[in-house]
Amino acid sequence: MQGTQPPPEQTAASYPRTERTVPTRSPDRASYHRELVHSILDEGYVCHLGFVRDGAPVVLPTLYARVGECLYVHGSTGSRPLRAVGQAAPGLPVCLTVTHVDGLVLARSAFHHSVNYRSVVVHGPARDVTDPEEKRRALDALVDHVVPGRAADTRPANKKELAATAVIRLDLNEVSAKLRTGGVNDEPEDLGLPHWAGVVPVRKGYGTPIADPDLAPGTGLPQYLREL
Amino acid sequence: MQGTQPPPEQTAASYPRTERTVPTRSPDRASYHRELVHSILDEGYVCHLGFVRDGAPVVLPTLYARVGECLYVHGSTGSRPLRAVGQAAPGLPVCLTVTHVDGLVLARSAFHHSVNYRSVVVHGPARDVTDPEEKRRALDALVDHVVPGRAADTRPANKKELAATAVIRLDLNEVSAKLRTGGVNDEPEDLGLPHWAGVVPVRKGYGTPIADPDLAPGTGLPQYLREL
Repeated sequence: MQGTQPPPEQTAASYPRTERTVPTRSPDRASYHRELVHSILDEGYVCHLGFVRDGAPVVLPTLYARVGECLYVHGSTGSRPLRAVGQAAPGLPVCLTVTHVDGLVLARSAFHHSVNYRSVVVHGPARDVTDPEEKRRALDALVDHVVPGRAADTRPANKKELAATAVIRLDLNEVSAKLRTGGVNDEPEDLGLPHWAGVVPVRKGYGTPIADPDLAPGTGLPQYLREL
Repeated sequence: MQGTQPPPEQTAASYPRTERTVPTRSPDRASYHRELVHSILDEGYVCHLGFVRDGAPVVLPTLYARVGECLYVHGSTGSRPLRAVGQAAPGLPVCLTVTHVDGLVLARSAFHHSVNYRSVVVHGPARDVTDPEEKRRALDALVDHVVPGRAADTRPANKKELAATAVIRLDLNEVSAKLRTGGVNDEPEDLGLPHWAGVVPVRKGYGTPIADPDLAPGTGLPQYLREL
Protein backbone atom coordinates (compact mmCIF):
# COMPACT_ATOMS: atom_id res chain seq x y z
CA MET A 1 0.00 0.00 0.00
CA GLN A 2 2.70 2.41 1.01
CA GLY A 3 4.51 2.17 -2.31
CA THR A 4 1.37 3.10 -4.25
CA GLN A 5 0.86 6.48 -2.61
CA PRO A 6 1.19 9.20 -5.22
CA PRO A 7 4.08 11.62 -4.75
CA PRO A 8 3.21 15.11 -3.51
CA GLU A 9 2.56 17.59 -6.29
CA GLN A 10 4.48 20.78 -6.77
CA THR A 11 1.78 23.35 -6.15
CA ALA A 12 3.41 26.48 -4.77
CA ALA A 13 6.68 28.38 -5.04
CA SER A 14 7.35 27.78 -1.34
CA TYR A 15 6.95 24.98 1.17
CA PRO A 16 4.54 25.81 4.01
CA ARG A 17 6.13 26.97 7.27
CA THR A 18 5.50 24.72 10.27
CA GLU A 19 6.32 25.01 13.96
CA ARG A 20 9.44 22.93 13.55
CA THR A 21 10.70 24.45 10.31
CA VAL A 22 10.75 28.02 11.65
CA PRO A 23 13.93 28.47 13.74
CA THR A 24 13.87 30.51 16.92
CA ARG A 25 17.34 31.88 16.05
CA SER A 26 18.24 33.75 12.83
CA PRO A 27 14.86 33.20 11.12
CA ASP A 28 16.14 35.58 8.41
CA ARG A 29 18.55 32.84 7.34
CA ALA A 30 15.70 30.39 6.73
CA SER A 31 14.08 29.90 3.34
CA TYR A 32 11.15 27.84 2.17
CA HIS A 33 11.64 28.51 -1.53
CA ARG A 34 11.10 25.32 -3.47
CA GLU A 35 13.68 26.01 -6.20
CA LEU A 36 16.36 26.90 -3.64
CA VAL A 37 15.61 23.75 -1.63
CA HIS A 38 15.82 21.63 -4.78
CA SER A 39 19.11 23.21 -5.84
CA ILE A 40 20.71 22.52 -2.44
CA LEU A 41 19.44 18.93 -2.46
CA ASP A 42 20.59 18.33 -6.03
CA GLU A 43 24.12 19.63 -5.38
CA GLY A 44 24.84 16.98 -2.76
CA TYR A 45 24.56 13.23 -2.57
CA VAL A 46 25.40 12.42 1.07
CA CYS A 47 22.79 13.28 3.69
CA HIS A 48 22.64 12.71 7.42
CA LEU A 49 19.54 10.72 8.31
CA GLY A 50 18.22 10.90 11.85
CA PHE A 51 15.72 8.63 13.53
CA VAL A 52 14.84 7.55 17.05
CA ARG A 53 15.80 4.13 18.40
CA ASP A 54 14.89 3.13 21.96
CA GLY A 55 14.12 6.79 22.71
CA ALA A 56 17.58 8.02 21.66
CA PRO A 57 18.60 9.77 18.45
CA VAL A 58 20.69 8.04 15.78
CA VAL A 59 22.30 9.98 12.91
CA LEU A 60 23.86 8.08 10.00
CA PRO A 61 25.41 9.31 6.75
CA THR A 62 23.86 7.82 3.63
CA LEU A 63 23.35 8.52 -0.07
CA TYR A 64 20.10 10.07 -1.28
CA ALA A 65 18.48 11.17 -4.51
CA ARG A 66 15.63 13.56 -5.31
CA VAL A 67 12.93 12.70 -7.84
CA GLY A 68 10.44 15.55 -8.03
CA GLU A 69 9.01 15.99 -4.55
CA CYS A 70 10.39 12.69 -3.18
CA LEU A 71 13.71 11.82 -1.63
CA TYR A 72 14.97 8.26 -1.79
CA VAL A 73 17.47 6.50 0.44
CA HIS A 74 18.58 2.90 0.02
CA GLY A 75 20.42 0.29 1.96
CA SER A 76 20.58 -3.36 2.82
CA THR A 77 17.32 -5.01 3.84
CA GLY A 78 19.36 -6.27 6.80
CA SER A 79 20.30 -2.84 8.18
CA ARG A 80 18.58 -1.76 11.37
CA PRO A 81 17.22 1.62 10.20
CA LEU A 82 15.77 0.20 6.98
CA ARG A 83 14.23 -2.73 8.84
CA ALA A 84 12.70 -0.23 11.26
CA VAL A 85 11.10 1.67 8.38
CA GLY A 86 9.61 -1.54 7.00
CA GLN A 87 8.15 -2.36 10.41
CA ALA A 88 6.68 1.12 11.08
CA ALA A 89 3.21 0.93 9.56
CA PRO A 90 2.52 4.66 9.04
CA GLY A 91 6.17 5.34 8.28
CA LEU A 92 9.13 5.98 10.57
CA PRO A 93 9.61 9.63 11.64
CA VAL A 94 12.95 10.79 10.26
CA CYS A 95 14.88 14.00 9.78
CA LEU A 96 17.07 14.18 6.67
CA THR A 97 19.66 16.94 6.52
CA VAL A 98 21.96 18.02 3.67
CA THR A 99 24.70 20.60 4.25
CA HIS A 100 27.15 22.39 1.96
CA VAL A 101 29.96 24.47 3.45
CA ASP A 102 30.87 27.36 1.15
CA GLY A 103 33.33 29.42 3.18
CA LEU A 104 34.98 30.13 6.51
CA VAL A 105 34.07 33.56 7.84
CA LEU A 106 36.95 34.93 9.93
CA ALA A 107 35.95 38.00 11.89
CA ARG A 108 38.21 40.20 14.01
CA SER A 109 36.28 39.03 17.09
CA ALA A 110 36.11 35.36 18.04
CA PHE A 111 32.38 35.79 18.63
CA HIS A 112 31.57 36.76 15.03
CA HIS A 113 33.42 33.85 13.44
CA SER A 114 31.03 31.92 11.27
CA VAL A 115 30.67 29.65 8.28
CA ASN A 116 28.95 30.32 4.99
CA TYR A 117 26.73 27.34 4.34
CA ARG A 118 23.55 26.13 2.72
CA SER A 119 21.53 23.37 4.35
CA VAL A 120 18.18 21.68 3.92
CA VAL A 121 16.29 19.91 6.69
CA VAL A 122 13.39 17.59 5.83
CA HIS A 123 11.03 16.18 8.45
CA GLY A 124 8.50 13.45 7.89
CA PRO A 125 7.67 9.77 7.82
CA ALA A 126 9.96 7.53 5.77
CA ARG A 127 8.08 4.78 3.98
CA ASP A 128 9.22 1.51 2.49
CA VAL A 129 9.07 1.52 -1.32
CA THR A 130 7.43 -1.74 -2.36
CA ASP A 131 6.34 -0.98 -5.94
CA PRO A 132 8.97 -2.66 -8.20
CA GLU A 133 8.85 0.11 -10.82
CA GLU A 134 9.26 2.89 -8.26
CA LYS A 135 12.09 0.94 -6.64
CA ARG A 136 13.93 0.61 -9.95
CA ARG A 137 13.47 4.31 -10.74
CA ALA A 138 14.75 5.21 -7.26
CA LEU A 139 17.85 3.03 -7.62
CA ASP A 140 18.65 4.57 -11.02
CA ALA A 141 18.16 8.01 -9.48
CA LEU A 142 20.52 7.16 -6.62
CA VAL A 143 23.30 6.27 -9.08
CA ASP A 144 22.60 9.23 -11.38
CA HIS A 145 22.42 11.65 -8.44
CA VAL A 146 26.09 10.96 -7.63
CA VAL A 147 27.32 10.77 -11.25
CA PRO A 148 24.80 12.07 -13.80
CA GLY A 149 24.58 9.68 -16.74
CA ARG A 150 26.06 6.72 -14.90
CA ALA A 151 22.93 4.57 -14.38
CA ALA A 152 22.60 3.86 -18.10
CA ASP A 153 26.26 2.73 -18.20
CA THR A 154 25.99 -0.09 -15.63
CA ARG A 155 24.66 -3.61 -15.36
CA PRO A 156 21.26 -3.04 -13.67
CA ALA A 157 20.34 -4.81 -10.45
CA ASN A 158 19.14 -8.38 -10.90
CA LYS A 159 16.32 -10.03 -8.95
CA LYS A 160 18.54 -11.18 -6.10
CA GLU A 161 20.17 -7.75 -5.74
CA LEU A 162 16.79 -6.01 -5.84
CA ALA A 163 15.52 -8.30 -3.10
CA ALA A 164 18.56 -7.50 -0.93
CA THR A 165 18.07 -3.73 -1.34
CA ALA A 166 15.57 -1.73 0.64
CA VAL A 167 14.50 1.70 -0.64
CA ILE A 168 12.71 4.23 1.53
CA ARG A 169 10.93 7.40 0.47
CA LEU A 170 10.56 10.70 2.27
CA ASP A 171 8.19 13.20 0.68
CA LEU A 172 9.11 16.88 0.54
CA ASN A 173 6.30 18.36 2.61
CA GLU A 174 7.88 19.76 5.77
CA VAL A 175 11.05 21.31 4.45
CA SER A 176 13.27 24.31 5.08
CA ALA A 177 16.59 25.63 3.87
CA LYS A 178 18.96 27.67 5.97
CA LEU A 179 21.89 29.61 4.62
CA ARG A 180 24.52 32.16 5.45
CA THR A 181 26.21 34.09 2.67
CA GLY A 182 28.36 37.19 2.43
CA GLY A 183 31.21 38.66 4.39
CA VAL A 184 32.24 39.45 7.93
CA ASN A 185 29.85 41.09 10.44
CA ASP A 186 32.20 42.62 13.01
CA GLU A 187 31.19 45.18 15.61
CA PRO A 188 31.95 48.75 14.40
CA GLU A 189 34.36 49.30 17.31
CA ASP A 190 36.40 46.24 16.25
CA LEU A 191 37.08 47.37 12.68
CA GLY A 192 40.42 48.96 13.55
CA LEU A 193 41.82 45.84 15.22
CA PRO A 194 44.96 44.43 13.58
CA HIS A 195 43.45 40.99 12.90
CA TRP A 196 43.02 39.79 9.34
CA ALA A 197 39.32 39.35 8.55
CA GLY A 198 37.56 37.95 5.53
CA VAL A 199 36.19 34.83 3.94
CA VAL A 200 38.15 31.72 2.96
CA PRO A 201 36.22 29.94 0.20
CA VAL A 202 35.77 26.19 0.66
CA ARG A 203 36.08 24.19 -2.56
CA LYS A 204 34.96 20.71 -3.47
CA GLY A 205 36.13 18.82 -6.50
CA TYR A 206 37.24 15.55 -7.98
CA GLY A 207 40.68 14.09 -8.61
CA THR A 208 41.75 12.06 -11.62
CA PRO A 209 39.67 8.86 -11.87
CA ILE A 210 41.62 5.70 -10.96
CA ALA A 211 40.59 2.87 -13.28
CA ASP A 212 40.03 -0.64 -11.94
CA PRO A 213 43.04 -2.80 -12.97
CA ASP A 214 40.73 -5.44 -14.48
CA LEU A 215 38.92 -3.08 -16.87
CA ALA A 216 37.76 -4.85 -20.05
CA PRO A 217 40.16 -4.05 -22.93
CA GLY A 218 39.25 -0.88 -24.83
CA THR A 219 37.09 0.59 -22.03
CA GLY A 220 37.91 4.30 -22.03
CA LEU A 221 36.92 6.97 -19.54
CA PRO A 222 33.31 7.91 -20.40
CA GLN A 223 32.34 11.46 -21.31
CA TYR A 224 30.12 11.91 -18.21
CA LEU A 225 33.19 11.36 -16.01
CA ARG A 226 35.28 13.83 -18.01
CA GLU A 227 32.55 16.41 -17.36
CA LEU A 228 32.23 15.68 -13.63
CA MET B 1 27.61 20.91 38.79
CA GLN B 2 27.59 19.56 35.23
CA GLY B 3 30.50 21.70 34.13
CA THR B 4 32.70 20.46 36.95
CA GLN B 5 32.60 16.81 35.91
CA PRO B 6 36.09 15.68 34.98
CA PRO B 7 36.60 14.68 31.36
CA PRO B 8 36.92 10.96 30.65
CA GLU B 9 40.48 9.71 30.69
CA GLN B 10 42.17 8.00 27.80
CA THR B 11 42.70 4.54 29.17
CA ALA B 12 42.72 2.09 26.29
CA ALA B 13 43.66 1.94 22.62
CA SER B 14 40.02 1.31 21.70
CA TYR B 15 36.59 2.50 22.77
CA PRO B 16 34.41 -0.25 24.22
CA ARG B 17 31.86 -1.79 21.86
CA THR B 18 28.22 -1.35 22.85
CA GLU B 19 24.95 -2.67 21.46
CA ARG B 20 24.40 0.52 19.49
CA THR B 21 27.95 0.99 18.22
CA VAL B 22 28.18 -2.46 16.59
CA PRO B 23 26.37 -2.34 13.24
CA THR B 24 24.29 -5.26 12.03
CA ARG B 25 25.57 -4.64 8.50
CA SER B 26 29.23 -4.62 7.41
CA PRO B 27 30.67 -4.89 10.95
CA ASP B 28 34.07 -5.31 9.25
CA ARG B 29 33.88 -1.64 8.28
CA ALA B 30 33.50 -0.53 11.90
CA SER B 31 36.45 0.50 14.06
CA TYR B 32 36.75 1.47 17.70
CA HIS B 33 40.38 2.50 17.53
CA ARG B 34 40.86 5.68 19.52
CA GLU B 35 43.56 7.21 17.30
CA LEU B 36 41.54 6.59 14.16
CA VAL B 37 38.43 8.12 15.76
CA HIS B 38 40.42 11.18 16.82
CA SER B 39 41.96 11.62 13.37
CA ILE B 40 38.54 11.53 11.68
CA LEU B 41 37.11 14.00 14.20
CA ASP B 42 40.10 16.34 13.89
CA GLU B 43 39.96 16.45 10.09
CA GLY B 44 36.45 17.95 10.07
CA TYR B 45 34.74 20.85 11.73
CA VAL B 46 31.08 20.48 10.75
CA CYS B 47 29.12 17.70 12.42
CA HIS B 48 25.47 16.69 12.24
CA LEU B 49 23.94 16.73 15.68
CA GLY B 50 20.80 14.70 16.31
CA PHE B 51 18.40 14.92 19.21
CA VAL B 52 14.78 14.11 19.92
CA ARG B 53 12.13 16.81 20.15
CA ASP B 54 8.50 15.91 20.85
CA GLY B 55 9.31 12.29 20.04
CA ALA B 56 10.69 13.09 16.58
CA PRO B 57 14.30 13.27 15.43
CA VAL B 58 15.99 16.58 14.58
CA VAL B 59 19.35 16.73 12.79
CA LEU B 60 21.21 20.04 12.51
CA PRO B 61 24.63 20.90 11.09
CA THR B 62 26.91 22.69 13.53
CA LEU B 63 30.59 23.32 14.27
CA TYR B 64 32.41 21.17 16.81
CA ALA B 65 35.84 20.81 18.34
CA ARG B 66 37.62 17.99 20.15
CA VAL B 67 39.64 18.59 23.32
CA GLY B 68 41.04 15.28 24.53
CA GLU B 69 38.09 12.99 25.15
CA CYS B 70 35.46 15.76 24.97
CA LEU B 71 33.60 17.23 22.02
CA TYR B 72 32.26 20.76 22.27
CA VAL B 73 29.44 22.40 20.32
CA HIS B 74 28.33 25.99 20.76
CA GLY B 75 25.44 28.18 19.80
CA SER B 76 23.16 30.94 20.93
CA THR B 77 21.65 30.56 24.37
CA GLY B 78 18.38 31.34 22.57
CA SER B 79 18.49 28.35 20.21
CA ARG B 80 16.06 25.54 20.90
CA PRO B 81 18.54 22.62 21.01
CA LEU B 82 20.94 24.43 23.35
CA ARG B 83 18.09 25.52 25.62
CA ALA B 84 16.94 21.89 25.68
CA VAL B 85 20.39 20.76 26.85
CA GLY B 86 20.37 23.35 29.62
CA GLN B 87 16.98 22.13 30.78
CA ALA B 88 17.82 18.40 30.69
CA ALA B 89 19.22 17.72 34.15
CA PRO B 90 21.24 14.55 33.44
CA GLY B 91 22.09 15.77 29.95
CA LEU B 92 20.20 15.54 26.67
CA PRO B 93 20.70 12.31 24.68
CA VAL B 94 22.34 13.25 21.39
CA CYS B 95 24.05 11.56 18.47
CA LEU B 96 26.89 13.49 16.86
CA THR B 97 28.11 12.31 13.45
CA VAL B 98 31.08 13.44 11.36
CA THR B 99 31.55 12.20 7.79
CA HIS B 100 34.30 12.60 5.19
CA VAL B 101 33.71 11.44 1.63
CA ASP B 102 36.96 10.29 0.01
CA GLY B 103 35.88 8.82 -3.30
CA LEU B 104 33.10 7.63 -5.56
CA VAL B 105 33.30 3.91 -6.24
CA LEU B 106 31.88 3.14 -9.68
CA ALA B 107 31.37 -0.56 -10.21
CA ARG B 108 30.30 -2.28 -13.42
CA SER B 109 27.06 -3.27 -11.67
CA ALA B 110 24.68 -0.65 -10.25
CA PHE B 111 24.41 -2.77 -7.09
CA HIS B 112 28.11 -2.52 -6.22
CA HIS B 113 28.34 1.24 -6.56
CA SER B 114 29.58 2.71 -3.32
CA VAL B 115 31.39 5.59 -1.70
CA ASN B 116 34.72 5.59 0.08
CA TYR B 117 34.16 7.40 3.35
CA ARG B 118 35.22 7.73 6.95
CA SER B 119 32.66 8.58 9.62
CA VAL B 120 32.45 8.76 13.38
CA VAL B 121 29.25 8.41 15.37
CA VAL B 122 29.16 9.48 19.03
CA HIS B 123 26.26 8.69 21.36
CA GLY B 124 25.72 10.13 24.78
CA PRO B 125 24.29 12.86 26.96
CA ALA B 126 25.19 16.44 26.01
CA ARG B 127 25.75 18.64 29.06
CA ASP B 128 25.74 22.38 29.48
CA VAL B 129 29.23 23.77 30.16
CA THR B 130 28.90 26.21 33.04
CA ASP B 131 32.49 26.51 34.27
CA PRO B 132 33.81 29.82 32.84
CA GLU B 133 37.34 28.48 32.27
CA GLU B 134 36.13 25.36 30.47
CA LYS B 135 33.78 27.51 28.39
CA ARG B 136 36.63 29.79 27.29
CA ARG B 137 38.85 26.85 26.42
CA ALA B 138 36.02 25.30 24.43
CA LEU B 139 35.38 28.51 22.48
CA ASP B 140 39.09 28.86 21.65
CA ALA B 141 39.11 25.23 20.57
CA LEU B 142 36.08 25.80 18.32
CA VAL B 143 37.89 28.60 16.48
CA ASP B 144 41.21 26.73 16.31
CA HIS B 145 39.53 23.54 15.14
CA VAL B 146 38.40 25.30 11.94
CA VAL B 147 41.60 27.35 11.41
CA PRO B 148 44.54 26.20 13.57
CA GLY B 149 46.24 29.23 15.12
CA ARG B 150 43.32 31.57 14.62
CA ALA B 151 42.03 31.88 18.22
CA ALA B 152 45.16 33.78 19.35
CA ASP B 153 44.70 36.23 16.47
CA THR B 154 41.21 37.47 17.42
CA ARG B 155 39.56 39.73 19.94
CA PRO B 156 38.35 37.22 22.58
CA ALA B 157 34.70 37.09 23.62
CA ASN B 158 33.69 39.74 26.13
CA LYS B 159 31.30 39.21 29.05
CA LYS B 160 28.18 39.98 27.05
CA GLU B 161 29.22 37.68 24.21
CA LEU B 162 30.10 34.88 26.64
CA ALA B 163 26.70 35.21 28.29
CA ALA B 164 24.98 34.98 24.89
CA THR B 165 26.88 31.81 23.95
CA ALA B 166 25.95 28.37 25.19
CA VAL B 167 28.54 25.59 25.04
CA ILE B 168 27.66 21.93 25.38
CA ARG B 169 29.94 18.99 25.95
CA LEU B 170 29.67 15.41 24.76
CA ASP B 171 32.19 12.97 26.20
CA LEU B 172 33.80 10.34 23.99
CA ASN B 173 32.58 7.18 25.69
CA GLU B 174 30.23 5.46 23.24
CA VAL B 175 31.99 5.96 19.94
CA SER B 176 32.58 4.15 16.69
CA ALA B 177 34.15 4.86 13.33
CA LYS B 178 33.00 3.32 10.08
CA LEU B 179 34.95 3.42 6.87
CA ARG B 180 35.16 2.07 3.37
CA THR B 181 38.43 2.24 1.48
CA GLY B 182 39.86 0.65 -1.63
CA GLY B 183 38.60 -0.17 -5.06
CA VAL B 184 35.67 -1.76 -6.83
CA ASN B 185 34.14 -5.07 -5.65
CA ASP B 186 32.35 -6.35 -8.73
CA GLU B 187 31.04 -9.88 -9.17
CA PRO B 188 33.58 -12.07 -11.05
CA GLU B 189 31.09 -12.65 -13.88
CA ASP B 190 30.74 -8.89 -14.43
CA LEU B 191 34.45 -8.17 -14.97
CA GLY B 192 34.23 -8.47 -18.75
CA LEU B 193 31.38 -5.95 -19.08
CA PRO B 194 32.23 -2.88 -21.17
CA HIS B 195 31.47 -0.38 -18.38
CA TRP B 196 34.26 1.80 -17.00
CA ALA B 197 34.89 0.98 -13.34
CA GLY B 198 37.12 2.55 -10.76
CA VAL B 199 37.31 5.20 -8.08
CA VAL B 200 36.89 8.96 -8.54
CA PRO B 201 38.75 10.70 -5.69
CA VAL B 202 36.80 13.46 -3.91
CA ARG B 203 38.91 16.47 -3.00
CA LYS B 204 38.36 19.25 -0.49
CA GLY B 205 40.33 22.43 -0.39
CA TYR B 206 40.32 26.17 0.05
CA GLY B 207 40.20 29.02 -2.44
CA THR B 208 42.10 32.30 -2.21
CA PRO B 209 41.07 34.20 0.95
CA ILE B 210 38.89 37.26 0.26
CA ALA B 211 39.89 40.08 2.61
CA ASP B 212 37.25 42.24 4.27
CA PRO B 213 37.21 45.65 2.49
CA ASP B 214 37.57 47.47 5.82
CA LEU B 215 40.78 45.70 6.92
CA ALA B 216 43.00 47.90 9.12
CA PRO B 217 45.88 49.31 7.04
CA GLY B 218 48.94 47.04 6.96
CA THR B 219 47.04 43.87 7.94
CA GLY B 220 48.53 41.13 5.77
CA LEU B 221 47.38 37.56 5.30
CA PRO B 222 48.63 35.63 8.36
CA GLN B 223 50.93 32.63 8.00
CA TYR B 224 48.34 30.18 9.42
CA LEU B 225 46.04 31.06 6.51
CA ARG B 226 48.80 30.62 3.94
CA GLU B 227 49.34 27.13 5.37
CA LEU B 228 45.65 26.17 5.41
